[in-house]
Amino acid sequence: MDKLSHIDSSGKAKMVDVSAKKDTLRTASAYAEVFVSKPVFTRIKQNDIEKGDVLSIAKFAGIQAAKKTSGLIPLCHNIFITNADVDLKLNDSKQSVEITSYVKTFAKTGVEMEALTAVSIAALTVYDMCKALDKSIRISDIRLLTKTGGKSGNFTADSSI
Amino acid sequence: MDKLSHIDSSGKAKMVDVSAKKDTLRTASAYAEVFVSKPVFTRIKQNDIEKGDVLSIAKFAGIQAAKKTSGLIPLCHNIFITNADVDLKLNDSKQSVEITSYVKTFAKTGVEMEALTAVSIAALTVYDMCKALDKSIRISDIRLLTKTGGKSGNFTADSSI
Amino acid sequence: MDKLSHIDSSGKAKMVDVSAKKDTLRTASAYAEVFVSKPVFTRIKQNDIEKGDVLSIAKFAGIQAAKKTSGLIPLCHNIFITNADVDLKLNDSKQSVEITSYVKTFAKTGVEMEALTAVSIAALTVYDMCKALDKSIRISDIRLLTKTGGKSGNFTADSSI
Amino acid sequence: MDKLSHIDSSGKAKMVDVSAKKDTLRTASAYAEVFVSKPVFTRIKQNDIEKGDVLSIAKFAGIQAAKKTSGLIPLCHNIFITNADVDLKLNDSKQSVEITSYVKTFAKTGVEMEALTAVSIAALTVYDMCKALDKSIRISDIRLLTKTGGKSGNFTADSSI
Amino acid sequence: MDKLSHIDSSGKAKMVDVSAKKDTLRTASAYAEVFVSKPVFTRIKQNDIEKGDVLSIAKFAGIQAAKKTSGLIPLCHNIFITNADVDLKLNDSKQSVEITSYVKTFAKTGVEMEALTAVSIAALTVYDMCKALDKSIRISDIRLLTKTGGKSGNFTADSSI
Amino acid sequence: MDKLSHIDSSGKAKMVDVSAKKDTLRTASAYAEVFVSKPVFTRIKQNDIEKGDVLSIAKFAGIQAAKKTSGLIPLCHNIFITNADVDLKLNDSKQSVEITSYVKTFAKTGVEMEALTAVSIAALTVYDMCKALDKSIRISDIRLLTKTGGKSGNFTADSSI
Repeated sequence: MDKLSHIDSSGKAKMVDVSAKKDTLRTASAYAEVFVSKPVFTRIKQNDIEKGDVLSIAKFAGIQAAKKTSGLIPLCHNIFITNADVDLKLNDSKQSVEITSYVKTFAKTGVEMEALTAVSIAALTVYDMCKALDKSIRISDIRLLTKTGGKSGNFTADSSI
Repeated sequence: MDKLSHIDSSGKAKMVDVSAKKDTLRTASAYAEVFVSKPVFTRIKQNDIEKGDVLSIAKFAGIQAAKKTSGLIPLCHNIFITNADVDLKLNDSKQSVEITSYVKTFAKTGVEMEALTAVSIAALTVYDMCKALDKSIRISDIRLLTKTGGKSGNFTADSSI
Repeated sequence: MDKLSHIDSSGKAKMVDVSAKKDTLRTASAYAEVFVSKPVFTRIKQNDIEKGDVLSIAKFAGIQAAKKTSGLIPLCHNIFITNADVDLKLNDSKQSVEITSYVKTFAKTGVEMEALTAVSIAALTVYDMCKALDKSIRISDIRLLTKTGGKSGNFTADSSI
Repeated sequence: MDKLSHIDSSGKAKMVDVSAKKDTLRTASAYAEVFVSKPVFTRIKQNDIEKGDVLSIAKFAGIQAAKKTSGLIPLCHNIFITNADVDLKLNDSKQSVEITSYVKTFAKTGVEMEALTAVSIAALTVYDMCKALDKSIRISDIRLLTKTGGKSGNFTADSSI
Repeated sequence: MDKLSHIDSSGKAKMVDVSAKKDTLRTASAYAEVFVSKPVFTRIKQNDIEKGDVLSIAKFAGIQAAKKTSGLIPLCHNIFITNADVDLKLNDSKQSVEITSYVKTFAKTGVEMEALTAVSIAALTVYDMCKALDKSIRISDIRLLTKTGGKSGNFTADSSI
Repeated sequence: MDKLSHIDSSGKAKMVDVSAKKDTLRTASAYAEVFVSKPVFTRIKQNDIEKGDVLSIAKFAGIQAAKKTSGLIPLCHNIFITNADVDLKLNDSKQSVEITSYVKTFAKTGVEMEALTAVSIAALTVYDMCKALDKSIRISDIRLLTKTGGKSGNFTADSSI
């Protein structure tokens, strides 16, 4: 096994072994923000984008992405998600779409990555639907808002950031 | 959060939160029927379709589809399926292929959509294998036959329909 | 190779070899109909289903399913889809949701199965979103409406059926 | 068809029809940046994260994600990607991981979304591998850097942003 | 860009850029062999395995796997497969199942990995269906038999191996 | 149901019903070996393959494949994997890459197929990255090393084979 560890040190990839963990309720909430130009913001608001209703489709894509997380993030566990929701809100003063996800599971590991993947794919979907009008759209501030359950305890993001 | 609800009302997509539900045995059985022309029916019966053994491949495709349901139906939960089976029977008098699925889980939510997806994809596979011979194939009567387990109780389809 | 053919005769599964075919524009349109109870029909019409906006989500799921067809139907080719659309219309007199798909490709094989898969998954999504209210929903009349392009020529379904 | 358009106006989702477009070389490059705490930055630099070599695995996940884009972004076309690459660079002064993707195709539509999805999933993978040490990691500035080919012409992001 | 290359040298993953290659007919054929115990061999021959018709299901799984290759092998291109076939033959003297795949494309890169993935997954499927009876099944000799088309020219395996 | 059994006997495919089984810890370890030419072996050892760090990428691909097993092997259950690891070791005397996987679950069925799929895809990834240099690479000796948990008890491969 000595050689194995050596190879490991150059080519290592390691899932966390959660075999001995307990099934408990775990939740996570994440955030992303999509900054668009003024004309695009107005058209999203008027629900007037050629490709369709931007906020509705992005919400969907986010929920579906939560279920695909373990196929996208190499070392994520494939877990049963008991609930996934994504909300999108227009912020007039910042000309942005604010995206928040809420994910739950009753499992041996948490859903932080599922929550983060949901907002990321929702944000990319907003981008896709508006990109014909504006190629300078920017997605920012993808981060964890809250996390509950599990050995590492609860987490709430510093709201001052 | 007021605005969120507003956005929700135009672009809502909502999984059912099953976090608090109990893991129990749940089963579902569904049905689909594929109507083909007389010459195609005869060739299926003689196992003489160019693309292969129609009933065998359709059975397979149905079982595999049951496992993919949560990736196809946007608000379906991704659950562990403990058993999935699909049976195909030739009905001489109706010149049809009768398809029945049986799906089981031990989980927080039921497998109705898995049973329905299994018969639908099995039916589409029959269609695919015969379509070179007959473009007027018709798939009908996709419906739930039975459902057991879960809070909403058991269900048995009205056999008179 | 003699034995191979023998095994083939019991365990055969065969894709159609399209290597020598030309890339041409090919289109297909398919149909499905979902019959619901009167109360469910009224609530779909009022856009008042707990899980979300039924018609919008089903449309979406159908478009996405078109792109997944080759992963669902075992002997389908994986092709580039140049366009996929799904429309849903409420039929008051029949208390049904009428679903029509339109799929295009510029490829060596057609998109009939993509069009049929799109309407089937859209129909199953309608079912999923309404099933808490009505377990007797029935999906029927899944069939090809039109097909253009390719060696086998054009096809238009008999509208009298 | 009048009713269809009506339904469309509330539940619309529309792929862009690219059937008539020409196959041409198209490229896109995108950017994302992951901001981590000082201790995490030091450990990434020392290649000393428990889960494995962060930059290598993230690169990998990004390349794979480019190929999955059409399954994640609802209205994206499924196209043949002729090349995908992702580079990760540590920025000492900002304590960040700078991620750049380069994607190419020879197809009827561009690869902007593929490039953006690649950097996003690479960034999420960095997050996943470091999240046990730091729950305040932030992903920012996901945007398109360049785009060439196609009817809408070339694009280069304003470097002053 | 200097630093990028440095990072590349520790965490590199590189697809081959095939943007400038021509679409041409390319084929590949691969081989795998599954060695089973005498009782299992007899039961496969009698088509008497509890889980189903081993050779038929394995053939099927192999064809489907060919289409999934780019999702499994990280640096493989996602290409349109114009044909995929898998044959399984029982070898009495060796008590083995001999598996051969034939894959074709008309594309910018070859299908060697598709052919090899097809036989590998077919072999694993044989294993799965027989494993309740024999845990010492062994899969061997997975290798390329032939390859045609593309810049690197044709290849035929040395039959003496 | 008589006819169903008849159809079953020609087209049968059967998952094992694990609904009544208990969730317990189950583990499996599998093995594969990739034989390469001397020049390729030297370059893998020097980490000097054009496509990237062979052992690292193959390890990854193997871990990811373990999570995809139920989508590849038709009658496999989709289960939650609590851990998956893959190790690659260079064997100088045999000029081979020795691949070992370790998979765990806490579920109603075992992970033998997950362990075998992990080593197979890791081996195919080694093949892919070296195939430009050597088309005679051979993958052999894919087999189960150990299995623990479940009704059928523990298994350890005969090391003399």
